[in-house]
Amino acid sequence: MGLAIVAPSKSKKEIANWIAVFKEIDPHIELQVYPDISKKESVEVVVLWQHPTGILKEFPNLKLICSMGSGVDHIMADYVPDQVPITRIVDPRLTFSMTNYVVMGILNYHRQLLRYIRDKQSKTWDMTNPEIPITVGVMGVGELGGDVLDKVAGLGISVIGYGNRPKSDFRHPYFHGEQLQEFLNEVNVVVCLLPLTPKTEGFLNKDLFQKFQKDTYLINVARGKHLIEADLIPAIESGHISGALLDVFQKEPLPDNHPFWEQEQITITPHIASITNHKAAAPQIMENYRNLQQNLPLANQINKDQGY
Amino acid sequence: MGLAIVAPSKSKKEIANWIAVFKEIDPHIELQVYPDISKKESVEVVVLWQHPTGILKEFPNLKLICSMGSGVDHIMADYVPDQVPITRIVDPRLTFSMTNYVVMGILNYHRQLLRYIRDKQSKTWDMTNPEIPITVGVMGVGELGGDVLDKVAGLGISVIGYGNRPKSDFRHPYFHGEQLQEFLNEVNVVVCLLPLTPKTEGFLNKDLFQKFQKDTYLINVARGKHLIEADLIPAIESGHISGALLDVFQKEPLPDNHPFWEQEQITITPHIASITNHKAAAPQIMENYRNLQQNLPLANQINKDQGY
Repeated sequence: MGLAIVAPSKSKKEIANWIAVFKEIDPHIELQVYPDISKKESVEVVVLWQHPTGILKEFPNLKLICSMGSGVDHIMADYVPDQVPITRIVDPRLTFSMTNYVVMGILNYHRQLLRYIRDKQSKTWDMTNPEIPITVGVMGVGELGGDVLDKVAGLGISVIGYGNRPKSDFRHPYFHGEQLQEFLNEVNVVVCLLPLTPKTEGFLNKDLFQKFQKDTYLINVARGKHLIEADLIPAIESGHISGALLDVFQKEPLPDNHPFWEQEQITITPHIASITNHKAAAPQIMENYRNLQQNLPLANQINKDQGY
Repeated sequence: MGLAIVAPSKSKKEIANWIAVFKEIDPHIELQVYPDISKKESVEVVVLWQHPTGILKEFPNLKLICSMGSGVDHIMADYVPDQVPITRIVDPRLTFSMTNYVVMGILNYHRQLLRYIRDKQSKTWDMTNPEIPITVGVMGVGELGGDVLDKVAGLGISVIGYGNRPKSDFRHPYFHGEQLQEFLNEVNVVVCLLPLTPKTEGFLNKDLFQKFQKDTYLINVARGKHLIEADLIPAIESGHISGALLDVFQKEPLPDNHPFWEQEQITITPHIASITNHKAAAPQIMENYRNLQQNLPLANQINKDQGY
């Protein structure tokens, strides 16, 4: 049973790290790495990250598609053969990083760190209004969004979740689907942790921002394609949005001439909120490789109809 | 039983807020406010914040001294009549603010927010090394330090406490007294939440910094007098300290010509980490006022020998 890695955006060093883990677990594994895949018919498992469009058609005996990260939108955006299951990575370390990044962003807004950084530059000592009262709304309450809700609530901050479908017995206040306006009425910090699907692409747009409470703070750590970037600065200028922390962008690296670089209310980080760690992720792929061989259920298989 | 408020640094509006709560709880309370205290012999309870030195000698019938905040160092620094107990404020809201401020500071260091703010100014997209691995040491494990340890540990970050005396069954790893070097060997973020006593004044000094791991990050949210300010910049320049978040200073407001304003590795906030809220604090003073009248034990009485 052959395995192929197709991840042209990853460096040779990164790929070598993954291969080292694969071989440590199974020294006899049959392994090919894109673009040097000569024996296409022997590939039964592909390990993908931002693969060339259409490449999946080239493997006639494909039995399993493994995303190298927690997202699968890069796979779902392309042709996927029917009957071939897709798995993703669920990494506690990735959740740790994502949650702590989001908590950092929330607290910096709540306690107005950027204001104090500006005040330092002008040697201003201003003790007035040291806290902005906040209620945090998290859009997308899966593995990552759920953990953010848990940790932020643990700090004594009010939280509400929002998702596509109803959830019974969710452990935090929760709105879904058509209850979007009710959700937005309650919150003044919005965290986007939605999966990227055709339905959520461009979800952060001017129509949504007009439903925000005045001065809502936006954190996007999901995917760049969730945000219609041209709509953000006008929403800041009109007061619907007070500022934003963005880790992901339509085009990365963010182009030099992009207006976000110059906008004072926007904080930018270079897609580092969470980084997939090969030491945690590669064994999960090998586990599913064995599950497939032994006809056992796959771990972290996605629902193709939902797209995540 | 008369009560006097002696808090010359607080504004008239703030004092009025406290009085409103006192009178709501006991409309008949006999109340005098410094400097207009004509009937000194009727004062049995004083409510103090940064009072004029020596004023406590002027009240011959004093039975109780109440700090208006969580600290009592401003009282202990002056003459206190024997036998007169001192109480302080323990306010969950104050703990909430203090902890979230400290968590913000820890996460900003861990995730290098200041680096990304600088990178934004130069339009730099640098994804390398997005996390500094940290173990957080909290010096002072009372009400506030204990809560910081709980919340930081809750985020999945390693924590260790340090205090003056042994503690059995403390819920986090803990070092005390002579074990200072052992404690410092384990941590690369140090949070000072010590009470201010003659023993801890100037505790953050060059001798301590030389015991730090290289590149330790310092957060001081206790009192300005804990830090020998002249020792900090040399410790940053020598690499013992990588940076600092300071909320308190020897002299506040921080003077215009103070070198901290210009030091890039030092983040300054204007003593806003936690603010005493009269709505939570004033009822605690009234409760002790009644406890005194009814000869009941006082709440949050400090140990004068320890100084906190």
